[in-house]
Amino acid sequence: RHVYGGWLIAQALRAAGTTVDPDRHAIALHASFVVAGTPEEHVRYGVERTRDGSSFTTRRVTASQGAGTVLVLTADFQRDEPGADYELPVVPGIPGPEGLATGRYDNPLLESRDVPVDAVTGGLPHTRRAWFRVRAPLPLEPDLHLQTVAYLSDFGATRAVREPHAHLADDARRISMSLDHSIWFHRPVDASGWLLSEMTPIASGRGRGLAIGSVRTEDGRLVATIAQEALLRERP
Amino acid sequence: RHVYGGWLIAQALRAAGTTVDPDRHAIALHASFVVAGTPEEHVRYGVERTRDGSSFTTRRVTASQGAGTVLVLTADFQRDEPGADYELPVVPGIPGPEGLATGRYDNPLLESRDVPVDAVTGGLPHTRRAWFRVRAPLPLEPDLHLQTVAYLSDFGATRAVREPHAHLADDARRISMSLDHSIWFHRPVDASGWLLSEMTPIASGRGRGLAIGSVRTEDGRLVATIAQEALLRERP
Repeated sequence: RHVYGGWLIAQALRAAGTTVDPDRHAIALHASFVVAGTPEEHVRYGVERTRDGSSFTTRRVTASQGAGTVLVLTADFQRDEPGADYELPVVPGIPGPEGLATGRYDNPLLESRDVPVDAVTGGLPHTRRAWFRVRAPLPLEPDLHLQTVAYLSDFGATRAVREPHAHLADDARRISMSLDHSIWFHRPVDASGWLLSEMTPIASGRGRGLAIGSVRTEDGRLVATIAQEALLRERP
Repeated sequence: RHVYGGWLIAQALRAAGTTVDPDRHAIALHASFVVAGTPEEHVRYGVERTRDGSSFTTRRVTASQGAGTVLVLTADFQRDEPGADYELPVVPGIPGPEGLATGRYDNPLLESRDVPVDAVTGGLPHTRRAWFRVRAPLPLEPDLHLQTVAYLSDFGATRAVREPHAHLADDARRISMSLDHSIWFHRPVDASGWLLSEMTPIASGRGRGLAIGSVRTEDGRLVATIAQEALLRERP
């Protein structure tokens, strides 16, 4: 068993945030998974203060266990400022969470519901969609809500990369794991309600693949954009 | 005048590549623009050997001038291996380069042709498209072709972010520059022919915006996926 990548990313983002002025919030992160972590051991998070600018703050976090570095993450923070608003509209017709059965990402922290693949294409085939909701109410701490989005953003990405390859659906047929993971946070979010995760496979080949997607609120507001590259090898 | 970001990225990728086994090729990069560089001064590229794994190599490049760091870039390289192939199909109906007038990104190294915005939407509004072709034939060196894709990938991204905001079209009304830039390379490319760049604005607000897009060959093959976050401030 490996440590879940979204947990490492959320914890690393949290570690970075403790060194940042509280009026600045996360706007983007880029993480590389170096070696798989083990759940049997504490993770240490070391924070490098890369930049403290007048508007932007950058941190680099190295997460390590006894065996060495498991994750390297760069996070950018920004002081709140106003600006012209836009977002790509939500694809219409996605089924809401209430009518769907419990999904495969359901866990002690999160309820989840899977939307059937290709229920709605919106021009982008093979998109994997799932609804998530935290089981316990979250405190009124904005960064914790962004970290929750980071936590759930790693569910379903490697699955999305595999989606166009029916012969790799069986676990015994392939090796599939996250290589890198990027998130851009577009606005503050109340992560206590249902959140919709969407991941579309963009390209695969040469033993890896990229999926791009988003996290939206139940009323369709775009909270974050996600990109993940995953290893995808057929077992010999 | 500032140094063009695509030039810094291509040079940093080239610097990283000189320290990597020639049978490994670039698969992804993530760059942060720290301060604007000046064209009047040489740029020094320092390379950190972050990882030398059995399949993957990671490098971190710091580009600096007298005033300090102008760019930080992480690049991943992979040993060639086979794998299941897929790519998001090209949106049909995009006009080819031959019938179009010379574009705004035309420069001494590259010919360019602009595709009218909203000529084709493919479900994604405000997409900016441009054709590029190198003026001189490129040597048969695979990495140089990927670096060429990196070079041109920074054209049009900040413009795409501004596309939904007609009141910010005028240069005097806004401040707009690249903040970070990511590229995922999906396959080797012959960058001597026409290449199609597409950038779609995903979200903007709070003084910044994200655009995601791609570079494809003239016959529609997906070469690379691009993500760029840009500053977008209204001038007071």
